[in-house]
Amino acid sequence: MTATLRYSPAATPASALVCRNCGAGYPLGAQHACFECFGPLEIGYSPDRLASVTRQDIEAGPHSLWRYAGLLPVGQDPATRVDSGTGMTPLVRADRLADRLGFTAPLWIKDDSANPTHSFKDRVVSVAITAARELGFRRIACASTGNLANSVAAHAARIGMDSIVFVPADLEPAKITQTAVYGGTLVAVDGSYDDVNRLCSELAETDEFEATAFVNVNVRPYYAEGSKTLGYEVAEQLGWRLPEQVVVPMASGSLLTKVHKAFGELTRIGLVDPLDYRVYGAQSAGCAPIADAFAAGRDTVLPVRPTGIAKSLNIGNPADGPYALDAIRRTGGAVGRVGDDEIVAGIRDLARTTGVFAETAGGVTTAVLRKLVEGGLLDPTLETVVLNTGEGLKTLDPLLDVVGPSHRVQPSLRSLREAGLIG
Amino acid sequence: MTATLRYSPAATPASALVCRNCGAGYPLGAQHACFECFGPLEIGYSPDRLASVTRQDIEAGPHSLWRYAGLLPVGQDPATRVDSGTGMTPLVRADRLADRLGFTAPLWIKDDSANPTHSFKDRVVSVAITAARELGFRRIACASTGNLANSVAAHAARIGMDSIVFVPADLEPAKITQTAVYGGTLVAVDGSYDDVNRLCSELAETDEFEATAFVNVNVRPYYAEGSKTLGYEVAEQLGWRLPEQVVVPMASGSLLTKVHKAFGELTRIGLVDPLDYRVYGAQSAGCAPIADAFAAGRDTVLPVRPTGIAKSLNIGNPADGPYALDAIRRTGGAVGRVGDDEIVAGIRDLARTTGVFAETAGGVTTAVLRKLVEGGLLDPTLETVVLNTGEGLKTLDPLLDVVGPSHRVQPSLRSLREAGLIG
Repeated sequence: MTATLRYSPAATPASALVCRNCGAGYPLGAQHACFECFGPLEIGYSPDRLASVTRQDIEAGPHSLWRYAGLLPVGQDPATRVDSGTGMTPLVRADRLADRLGFTAPLWIKDDSANPTHSFKDRVVSVAITAARELGFRRIACASTGNLANSVAAHAARIGMDSIVFVPADLEPAKITQTAVYGGTLVAVDGSYDDVNRLCSELAETDEFEATAFVNVNVRPYYAEGSKTLGYEVAEQLGWRLPEQVVVPMASGSLLTKVHKAFGELTRIGLVDPLDYRVYGAQSAGCAPIADAFAAGRDTVLPVRPTGIAKSLNIGNPADGPYALDAIRRTGGAVGRVGDDEIVAGIRDLARTTGVFAETAGGVTTAVLRKLVEGGLLDPTLETVVLNTGEGLKTLDPLLDVVGPSHRVQPSLRSLREAGLIG
Repeated sequence: MTATLRYSPAATPASALVCRNCGAGYPLGAQHACFECFGPLEIGYSPDRLASVTRQDIEAGPHSLWRYAGLLPVGQDPATRVDSGTGMTPLVRADRLADRLGFTAPLWIKDDSANPTHSFKDRVVSVAITAARELGFRRIACASTGNLANSVAAHAARIGMDSIVFVPADLEPAKITQTAVYGGTLVAVDGSYDDVNRLCSELAETDEFEATAFVNVNVRPYYAEGSKTLGYEVAEQLGWRLPEQVVVPMASGSLLTKVHKAFGELTRIGLVDPLDYRVYGAQSAGCAPIADAFAAGRDTVLPVRPTGIAKSLNIGNPADGPYALDAIRRTGGAVGRVGDDEIVAGIRDLARTTGVFAETAGGVTTAVLRKLVEGGLLDPTLETVVLNTGEGLKTLDPLLDVVGPSHRVQPSLRSLREAGLIG
């Protein structure tokens, strides 16, 4: 695919694709790996362009992630945006959870289950599909652990673009059904997410998929930038301040690196004051390759075979693992891991204290928060933000045996009396 | 319960509780039925107070339903609000659905699945629980077909108030689990919603429930006003205009009457220009008491025993049926009804053309829209808004046999070739 960006280079603050491994630069376009060293590419920006963005510009923008278009590679012209209303999700003050965990500083939940298809993936897809259309692609595709599948299929349906989505066949039924209902092609693969991802990387090189944008393969540099908006929103919603600690679930590790990137950008361009914040990563014990590397003091992340209920985090060979490790270590953070029972307890703790019903990934993050505090690795006297990236309705199965009606009665006062509900 | 409102009467635009049947007036407080004729009470307002609200006041408010506090009975003091971030849900331009149905005028979906617990019930609960706290109640309760249960339990969890929720035992599993996860007491009743509602009406009169606010029984006048915000938002999001036609799903009929009330208020106080809009109601064939009355030209609504998949609309004895009928007839609207297969088709039509995944109630509304257009009862040359009141993830069962993966493959290019996905 040699298409070039159609939008005016005069409008975008992005200046190049830059190799994260060797630093080589390439023109903006549909390329994702370095020709020199095969390292992953990410978007580089003109520092002057970024520095020209003001709080007022942002606050005058739409109530969606596109208010940050001045800090993104695409979407400067509103007519080019795919805008599903993603972003500006609630930052919920979690005082009751803070009390339970012994926090003396404010604790916040950034609730991305409020996005249109109920996960943070709507952010990356909004940016990726906008870029894909500008780059001349005619179909959109992805490998997914579920949430991305939902979001790609929904966004494609909204704008009338063909989509083809590849998922492990053993995903949660809700995520399969939600993807299928939007139409498009849905391919269930007998294998792990890592198998599905490898397959998509091969497919992206075939002639038949030349006009297909795999959001997390061949347009990944654009896609990944969408996650920065989660970091921008946290800062803006705190009143243009960074939190002292942030806890992020890790699958590929990309989200964590982009929240860190967003905080750095806001600091460099003067939209927030500098702060020595710490970035913490959360994994499930069933799939903890980044946690393993952190614990062992290694820079390399060794692939694992994922198990466990937090399927949206089940990436055994995380593409951004080393970069996530680097961000965690540089900021003085840590990585926590929790087992399936703790994940379910995390979902319940969060729901019962905040009214936020998270999917298993949010259970991981909440349970890791508790574990890090109890282990003395996260400081409850510092302001902390926890990211909930998905929706509990998508991962009901682990709860079915754990929660349910407290009473079953007949529709009569007598039956209520027998149940002890009235005297 | 003889508690009186604690907030200053100087702040609220509400002036009295007014009987919708005989017009008798009562002081603001925890009363829901007329002492004279047993008719339902609703909130009356000071016309001068309402007329003092400006577009600028509203636009300067929070990005939630509380921006309309000047038009609501409670919440004028921000410190008293229970604010879960409800409201200001997307108004989605549905051009692809419009094309399919032959619309030449704009067609919009107001997507209330974007609310925190993913239904419009977060609106009524935000207002009801704010009122309940102000009125001195110590526990919050409801009879529910599911969405209200989710919302009451979540809001109670957020503010740390006790809750007790009554639902038919045969509800969708997702709605049961979502309610239970927030904690609180969840009582499953072997009976229909109408049985549950009667039981709650009796309970509300017992000594043990004296300090319990049943949101849709003893604080119903406050609760119901929350639905007005859906109407306000539609008008504001259209650029302070009313739509020419609006299609509303009907269970109790309350939502439809309150959208009509909201449009009327905005017109009277000059925030929108007068317009002869039409209000349309949607019911499922399995529970169509209001549709029956409309078709028969009756003013009275005869109770039915509900069946069918649109469980959130399965109220066989709709409290606001006559008032909904009145609004529909006065505005020149109509009522449509659709069967279960049409409801599923409606869900798919909406998802495939807009990316909005609606629960069965949204399938009812979309399918009724189609039917009304095809029957010549709704004019596709007039601007139309369709309300989606809930989330598809809560009612997956009817879709499980209808949608699914289009292909199942092994993780190899060879398997993809055999499946015809590549040549």
